[in-house]
Amino acid sequence: MTDDRPGPAVLGQNQYGKAENRVVRITRDGATHHIKDLNVSVSLTGDMEDVHLTGSNANVLTTDATKNTVFAFAKEHGVDSAEEFGIHLARHFVTSQDAIRTARIRIEEYAWERIEAPGAGEAKHSFVRKNQEIRTAQIGYDGHRWQIVSGLKDLTVLNSTASEFHGYVKDRYTTLPETRDRILATQVHARWRYGWTDEATPMPPWDLAYEHTRRHLLHAFAETYSLSLQQTLYQMGARVIEQLPEIDEIRLSLPNRHHFLVDLEPFGLKNDNEVYFAADRPYGLIEATILRDGAEPAIPVDMTNLP
Amino acid sequence: MTDDRPGPAVLGQNQYGKAENRVVRITRDGATHHIKDLNVSVSLTGDMEDVHLTGSNANVLTTDATKNTVFAFAKEHGVDSAEEFGIHLARHFVTSQDAIRTARIRIEEYAWERIEAPGAGEAKHSFVRKNQEIRTAQIGYDGHRWQIVSGLKDLTVLNSTASEFHGYVKDRYTTLPETRDRILATQVHARWRYGWTDEATPMPPWDLAYEHTRRHLLHAFAETYSLSLQQTLYQMGARVIEQLPEIDEIRLSLPNRHHFLVDLEPFGLKNDNEVYFAADRPYGLIEATILRDGAEPAIPVDMTNLP
Amino acid sequence: MTDDRPGPAVLGQNQYGKAENRVVRITRDGATHHIKDLNVSVSLTGDMEDVHLTGSNANVLTTDATKNTVFAFAKEHGVDSAEEFGIHLARHFVTSQDAIRTARIRIEEYAWERIEAPGAGEAKHSFVRKNQEIRTAQIGYDGHRWQIVSGLKDLTVLNSTASEFHGYVKDRYTTLPETRDRILATQVHARWRYGWTDEATPMPPWDLAYEHTRRHLLHAFAETYSLSLQQTLYQMGARVIEQLPEIDEIRLSLPNRHHFLVDLEPFGLKNDNEVYFAADRPYGLIEATILRDGAEPAIPVDMTNLP
Amino acid sequence: MTDDRPGPAVLGQNQYGKAENRVVRITRDGATHHIKDLNVSVSLTGDMEDVHLTGSNANVLTTDATKNTVFAFAKEHGVDSAEEFGIHLARHFVTSQDAIRTARIRIEEYAWERIEAPGAGEAKHSFVRKNQEIRTAQIGYDGHRWQIVSGLKDLTVLNSTASEFHGYVKDRYTTLPETRDRILATQVHARWRYGWTDEATPMPPWDLAYEHTRRHLLHAFAETYSLSLQQTLYQMGARVIEQLPEIDEIRLSLPNRHHFLVDLEPFGLKNDNEVYFAADRPYGLIEATILRDGAEPAIPVDMTNLP
Repeated sequence: MTDDRPGPAVLGQNQYGKAENRVVRITRDGATHHIKDLNVSVSLTGDMEDVHLTGSNANVLTTDATKNTVFAFAKEHGVDSAEEFGIHLARHFVTSQDAIRTARIRIEEYAWERIEAPGAGEAKHSFVRKNQEIRTAQIGYDGHRWQIVSGLKDLTVLNSTASEFHGYVKDRYTTLPETRDRILATQVHARWRYGWTDEATPMPPWDLAYEHTRRHLLHAFAETYSLSLQQTLYQMGARVIEQLPEIDEIRLSLPNRHHFLVDLEPFGLKNDNEVYFAADRPYGLIEATILRDGAEPAIPVDMTNLP
Repeated sequence: MTDDRPGPAVLGQNQYGKAENRVVRITRDGATHHIKDLNVSVSLTGDMEDVHLTGSNANVLTTDATKNTVFAFAKEHGVDSAEEFGIHLARHFVTSQDAIRTARIRIEEYAWERIEAPGAGEAKHSFVRKNQEIRTAQIGYDGHRWQIVSGLKDLTVLNSTASEFHGYVKDRYTTLPETRDRILATQVHARWRYGWTDEATPMPPWDLAYEHTRRHLLHAFAETYSLSLQQTLYQMGARVIEQLPEIDEIRLSLPNRHHFLVDLEPFGLKNDNEVYFAADRPYGLIEATILRDGAEPAIPVDMTNLP
Repeated sequence: MTDDRPGPAVLGQNQYGKAENRVVRITRDGATHHIKDLNVSVSLTGDMEDVHLTGSNANVLTTDATKNTVFAFAKEHGVDSAEEFGIHLARHFVTSQDAIRTARIRIEEYAWERIEAPGAGEAKHSFVRKNQEIRTAQIGYDGHRWQIVSGLKDLTVLNSTASEFHGYVKDRYTTLPETRDRILATQVHARWRYGWTDEATPMPPWDLAYEHTRRHLLHAFAETYSLSLQQTLYQMGARVIEQLPEIDEIRLSLPNRHHFLVDLEPFGLKNDNEVYFAADRPYGLIEATILRDGAEPAIPVDMTNLP
Repeated sequence: MTDDRPGPAVLGQNQYGKAENRVVRITRDGATHHIKDLNVSVSLTGDMEDVHLTGSNANVLTTDATKNTVFAFAKEHGVDSAEEFGIHLARHFVTSQDAIRTARIRIEEYAWERIEAPGAGEAKHSFVRKNQEIRTAQIGYDGHRWQIVSGLKDLTVLNSTASEFHGYVKDRYTTLPETRDRILATQVHARWRYGWTDEATPMPPWDLAYEHTRRHLLHAFAETYSLSLQQTLYQMGARVIEQLPEIDEIRLSLPNRHHFLVDLEPFGLKNDNEVYFAADRPYGLIEATILRDGAEPAIPVDMTNLP
């Protein structure tokens, strides 16, 4: 006799922590101050059946305590780089709590630059937020191995020429005219994974690697004569893999920010690739991973949740 | 002789399409109009090596054509439900293009309700946007099997009592006082996967299933005396699995929207759980999957990209 | 001998206070709870030359104290309506501080509705945020007279027919085709000023007046056969002035949320006012004040700061 | 016999136009390209009784035509500066349409900087959006006189010391401890009005004046040892009035972005002005106008609409 009733509910993957802790760390070197401005999110997994099933919090380190730890560690360890700060945190949660098996720290970093004011004398404590892009870091730890995925987002770039688009499939719903000269614009969202996983080996120079990756992404974007945004994306990713041996994988999510040439003929005007309408929605969305040959992909496919 | 140089770059997973097509479909039944208001994103995979490596678009159905298809299908097939509309689209892309292997359609739906105006006579063409939550649907197809993950987001709920929090781990960084009465508030973000995968079997009643799931989530939230948000989360998910046999998996992402009791003693006032400060950041973030026993989890772990 | 050098700098209008205090007030009536959810901003003017010119804070009530007052008053006075709560606050600041001349309180109110859960028994402490529109109130006081400007925003409405647009000016830059049937959609942003200014006279019933105004705006929108959004706007405003004698002035800011009929002819399909593209930007922006004859306008002209 | 019935509704101030036209203008100077990226909003007033009262559009220049004009003028006149572009537009609307009495053009400008890529050769057509602040311009014209109000927003600045706060009023609700060393951070929102009103006189050098004003705001912020944000605000405004004779009035809206020193004593740590929590809400909001002596103020008092 079979039982066709659907099975009962069981608990699957679960994680928890405090999200978006906004910590600002000032370091004073005499009259010269330094600033680190982070948004830190903690996510923990472990022995958490009970709290879900019975509400017993016996294994639960509170999200409030994880928040306190972020601020206390900013004092105790300082913030050398987002990655290193995250490593301190992840190690602490996994090694200090029996019930915690893995920790994942996500960090956004906001860059500041100095205000060079002639009347400020020796004082160097004034800053203006740079705002160009947001740097990101994700630090994963299971007690044995590390996974570091760094990245950036909201870096908006544009080529005003050197972009063509033609030779594509023409199906029943294709109306787009081919073009030999268009604006190519996108908002770069990139995440790259370092090969470093073992604490016994030296860490990559996180800040330097970030600056190099950022620069290579910009240069590859500018230097690629583009026949499609996919081609540009691949060039950007491959450049990073080829130039930075410490990076094994990079994923790029590039919205195609359409700039439509405005038809000025009704007004007796010729638009010689001069006047464009910058559209909001819809937009093309081109996403791909570029890997070092032989590397296993580990960055999740979806980097946006929209819609 | 060994070669220690890092390997070359290779292309990994990639996908593309047009995101956020804002289509509004009006159906006229005499003086009575009906409205469907969708935000549709298309994502395709397939034989796309060439476009990345050489810029050849020979296999590329343009994102512009995918946009046109969304609007044309709103006419040809109508919009019965977000899920059914997405199924039409996904089937079309996979079956009509040799180079396309999989299609994933993501839809946000915005609900409207009628304005009942006494002076409008027979006319029923006036609507006010409901705005309470956003309904979501994700339709995946690989030419053989379907994966339908429906959901909702931005449904904000609050219990003004019947929530305790105590008995948790006290580590060096724990300062939170235990409480026997607190506000529990969260913004429900839920995604649930239907067991339906095979076109030969009847589809679930998508709209009805949505209404039931939404109702069960609200009721379980209200009816659970909570010792932790994890417990409430599990009750919400388990209720859905138990009540809707067509659903095999649900994932909930629940930010703990903290409402802090304001200390009014400095002003000579007693705050008897009456006056709260609603905080923005940081917030707890509690996430878990609840499965039907025996089901394989398939909803990705991360439902938010913040930070 | 004249002096052509430009004059020195002097201080003009100034105001200060704490913005966006998020206060939630729970009232318990046995097992039945009530909730008021407000975002309160305080803005004060007065004798503030010194703090600007010399940095002396001798006349400055701190913004932190204005915040504390908001929370303390939620306990001491409760929150009957946003308007009444703001009146308590404004009166306090102006009458308790010699240096303060005027107070302006701005409030956003977020509405909640009960979750009716069958298993909740007698308990009535569960709520879901309604989210349809945001209610606003602005309370001004100079020690003598009151000015109360209430309002709402983000109430999105749509007529799927009964809207025409033709007979307009055709200049060199006009290309828009005339139409006898279009979607008319807007996001209502309304502010209305009550005639009540004198504490010696009875206050209007704030909550009831809000509900009536909201209803009249919706009904007038639905009942107007529209030849232009300006005409619809005027009908909405005039309806309120005519139906609510306690209101002397209303200003409406109505973005024309364009819904463009999609051209489906390239696909061999006829679009009989069925399929629309909902555009984001640009949008028409129609704004006007409607007054009771003889009233002096007092609501500022610009209700949006974009761009 | 008196008639106590409230008076009928009449039309008051009204304005209309197309908002948020996103125009990008490329200028090619051989291989060197230049880019101007604007968001342009048009607002017109005039003889518009009829369209409100009867729906007759006989006097209405469509918002669609105003949009077309923006794009056509980007071709015909180019975009030398936001201010000059707005002057072309405003003059056109007022002088070409009998029914139009005044025009107000609002512009946001997004700055870009070149990507200097070594492999790009002679090509100079690659840009990265600067994103630090948004430049604004408002151009008003009534057929006789001009009013130009330029500005900037979202320029975030921070002093990590050289800020004190004490000596303020202590009322019943004051709990804030005095401090001799705190972080002072704000997001500068500034609008300044030029004395230029008469087309017969030479225009100020708009771009240069913008750069100077921006620089003086930053320098005054950095150079002021602050006893209150009001004092800093005044120094910023006065510096601009004193240094730029072409500017008669400036209004600053400065949210006090609180950075709270985190109490680390529970963890046995001393926080020597090193670790701060950056709070979102509530925030202080300090606003003031600084005028050239003798000038009439004309910039509206409220620069934000929140809440």
